[in-house]
Amino acid sequence: MTEKEIIFRLATRADLPSIVRMLADDELGSQRERFENPLPESYYSAFEQINQDSNHELIVAERNGEVIGTLHLMFLPSISFQGRLRAQVESVRIDKRFQSQGIGSEMMKWVMERATQRGAHAVQLTTHKSRVDAHRFYERLGFEGSHLGMKMSLK
Amino acid sequence: MTEKEIIFRLATRADLPSIVRMLADDELGSQRERFENPLPESYYSAFEQINQDSNHELIVAERNGEVIGTLHLMFLPSISFQGRLRAQVESVRIDKRFQSQGIGSEMMKWVMERATQRGAHAVQLTTHKSRVDAHRFYERLGFEGSHLGMKMSLK
Repeated sequence: MTEKEIIFRLATRADLPSIVRMLADDELGSQRERFENPLPESYYSAFEQINQDSNHELIVAERNGEVIGTLHLMFLPSISFQGRLRAQVESVRIDKRFQSQGIGSEMMKWVMERATQRGAHAVQLTTHKSRVDAHRFYERLGFEGSHLGMKMSLK
Repeated sequence: MTEKEIIFRLATRADLPSIVRMLADDELGSQRERFENPLPESYYSAFEQINQDSNHELIVAERNGEVIGTLHLMFLPSISFQGRLRAQVESVRIDKRFQSQGIGSEMMKWVMERATQRGAHAVQLTTHKSRVDAHRFYERLGFEGSHLGMKMSLK
């Protein structure tokens, strides 16, 4: 293993503070997360639900023993497309100290390989309309911005 | 129960032909589904996966004993938003013979109630950029088209 090699593995409970720190570390995230010590229990119960469901993979990217990125890969069974599985990526974050080093690209390539391994016919994600750099990044990887992503908050 | 009341219920195996017929009954769907008799086995195995997972609800809308619509509601555990559950809707279809009667609106209102019941903090969906009428429909219901939905087919 070279010094710079990135390892992708399933997150453990012990990784949750690193994950929440990265989720909270941008303008949108800082308004909706609570990166506190100890972490609010709700993060741990969500982790348990994800961890016991084989269609969910909460992933950390690690380099030199340090967590530098995270993503949540999910496999969605579906009737459409002749009943084929689809993959969806959510909550992609890279530690701000290590951005613009090609880590995001390695993470997404890992996602494509993993999704292919699991038999998914497609990978989907949504990204905020304002994140024009992200759109270009995903387009370079082969994603097509074909859809409008719509959300509604519930009371 | 009035004659026009719509009932929402979990789909059974016996509903699959109606569901696939509706999925196949538009320009995009006709290219990717196989509405045949008997249905390809892949639809049934996808149904079994969905049916045994309590985070997935494949729904049919029924009126006067006839299936007139379908949707797939899924609940996605997530670390972000303080570990709160989110709801996602896929594969929404209404039988062409019954469109423009307000059925879609009733279906989505049912989705919002169900998602609230399950404790989801938000409902999300994507819709093809070309479906401008659908965007307006969802906006009227309170959805905001804040995201770009990106997809990539895998080999």
